Amino acid sequence: MDAINIKQLAQKLNLSVSTVSKAFKNTYEINEKTRDRILAMAKELNYQPNAVASSLRTQKSKTIAVIIPEIDNSFFVQAIKGIESIAQELGYHVLIYLTHEDPAKEMSFLQNLQVGRADGVLMSLSGAGNINHIDSLNQKGLPCVFFDRIHESTEHIKITTNDFESGFNATQHLIDQGCKRIAHLSFSKKLSISKMRREGYLEALKKNKMKVDKNLLVECEHDSGEAFTLIKALLKSHQPDGVFSSFEKLAMQSYRACDELNLNIPEEVKIISFSNLEIASLLNPSLSTITQPAFSIGQKSAQILFELIDKKTIAIPGNRIVIPSTLMKRASTEVC
Amino acid sequence: MDAINIKQLAQKLNLSVSTVSKAFKNTYEINEKTRDRILAMAKELNYQPNAVASSLRTQKSKTIAVIIPEIDNSFFVQAIKGIESIAQELGYHVLIYLTHEDPAKEMSFLQNLQVGRADGVLMSLSGAGNINHIDSLNQKGLPCVFFDRIHESTEHIKITTNDFESGFNATQHLIDQGCKRIAHLSFSKKLSISKMRREGYLEALKKNKMKVDKNLLVECEHDSGEAFTLIKALLKSHQPDGVFSSFEKLAMQSYRACDELNLNIPEEVKIISFSNLEIASLLNPSLSTITQPAFSIGQKSAQILFELIDKKTIAIPGNRIVIPSTLMKRASTEVC
Repeated sequence: MDAINIKQLAQKLNLSVSTVSKAFKNTYEINEKTRDRILAMAKELNYQPNAVASSLRTQKSKTIAVIIPEIDNSFFVQAIKGIESIAQELGYHVLIYLTHEDPAKEMSFLQNLQVGRADGVLMSLSGAGNINHIDSLNQKGLPCVFFDRIHESTEHIKITTNDFESGFNATQHLIDQGCKRIAHLSFSKKLSISKMRREGYLEALKKNKMKVDKNLLVECEHDSGEAFTLIKALLKSHQPDGVFSSFEKLAMQSYRACDELNLNIPEEVKIISFSNLEIASLLNPSLSTITQPAFSIGQKSAQILFELIDKKTIAIPGNRIVIPSTLMKRASTEVC
Repeated sequence: MDAINIKQLAQKLNLSVSTVSKAFKNTYEINEKTRDRILAMAKELNYQPNAVASSLRTQKSKTIAVIIPEIDNSFFVQAIKGIESIAQELGYHVLIYLTHEDPAKEMSFLQNLQVGRADGVLMSLSGAGNINHIDSLNQKGLPCVFFDRIHESTEHIKITTNDFESGFNATQHLIDQGCKRIAHLSFSKKLSISKMRREGYLEALKKNKMKVDKNLLVECEHDSGEAFTLIKALLKSHQPDGVFSSFEKLAMQSYRACDELNLNIPEEVKIISFSNLEIASLLNPSLSTITQPAFSIGQKSAQILFELIDKKTIAIPGNRIVIPSTLMKRASTEVC
């Protein structure tokens, strides 16, 4: 059965389209008896007023958008769970958009979202470093909260973990376990989190009076093929005895590279990584991690976004919330 | 800066709102010179016509919706990548909705989607078995393709892997490796895929003249806490020497349970599971898997959905596409 439209419904009722339309508009321009008759017939014929047209009238979509670079990442999977736990309580729908690290997609999504499609946006930036398109969010009056991958120059609320301190702690842990040549693996320096974690690493070396060897700093593109080649070359040519990876995917590539090169973890090289992988403890060997409070970051971001929506404010300048990560020591950094 | 609306734009141009509105409508009721003037000013003032109002006019949202039960599952992560690879080529946005196995959410999402928000739906059902709400999709004229978790009684196109045959092959592999007491782990029988995989298991036992021991059949709720307890009790009380898990999460719980009970995999119990985990080979021990063609299933589903959207057809009755899985033998089922 095809969907019945308002014209057909009006014909059935022998009323004008404009009268029928009023029944769904909560106006006082229609008498109650007529409205009841219209709604009863609408129910019988399974007519539903156009959702988009409705949202134009009510100016609320009861939807929030979550814009993230990737889903193949346990941090974002858990953050989404946190966001949904709050949205569900408030009867909001959550739409997830993936940008695949492409600022053009980010821009296109934002343009689509600007009016009427969502009441607010939770966003974690792509690695491009360009944020001109973000400014347009303010101009359109859409509340927005940034989480994890932020940009300092925006006025929006930013929720992150303690990336600098965690980078420092991960590196210090490797030093405490006896490592002398510690490599650092990362993605694009343009990413806020890459930068902070790397600075934490450099600070730990400095504090321990260890020299920075540029050969031990590897920056990969978001392409695992290239990452694997670079990491394998690093392990082979520069023999680090410790690896601090800022991203879970790079730790997995390091495991594969060690396997191919017959390097034993943790005997020959110790590995620690930022990761929210629930099965980190089931890996061979179990992986020491900096575990981010992904669920809490998602929850907190959503709570604040709903406050903004409620108050009809788009941003609160300068606000920054930091929820610390936890260092989980496992077999991959054990002293043998 | 606040967003400029059409009224303000009209004032700036000294034109009526209705004239300005025509410039964005592609009608012939406005002369070219005036249109150019309006568009130039709109650009200068960063005015954008309301996206929702636009989609009402064009009747195309250039958006497809993907409704899935969970994101914490490598099958769906890869299927989404496949879907997006096709959508991207065609300039479509992909919205992801998570139902968390809740048919009420499924219903609510579908109602929201029925008119104007999306041009089509890709759907993998929740485990509830109730599909009355799905019928309403047809009534609303929204094209839909089901993938992975389907329901036989709908007329929509269904795209799955060879669940029965793969269940058979997994069980046969354990028998070939010497297992005599093979347990089967699954979620809700109401799920199409649970049922088919279990039937494959039963058929393999039958073909090999092995008796069915009901104590070795474990059906878990979608709650990992309970699953862990049930699996631990199974391993402790009924000593299976092989485990065929229909779901990745249950295999991970089996690894944890074996660890707690000091059972060696594969010496004391061999494990094989349906799984698309990219790091299955990095587990301790590496996990033998039935690897589904998740990316291809996503791609194919999207291709067919776009064909339906193009032809303005909502479904093709009786169509079923099966893309086979691959058995990957790894250490967890090795003969010791």
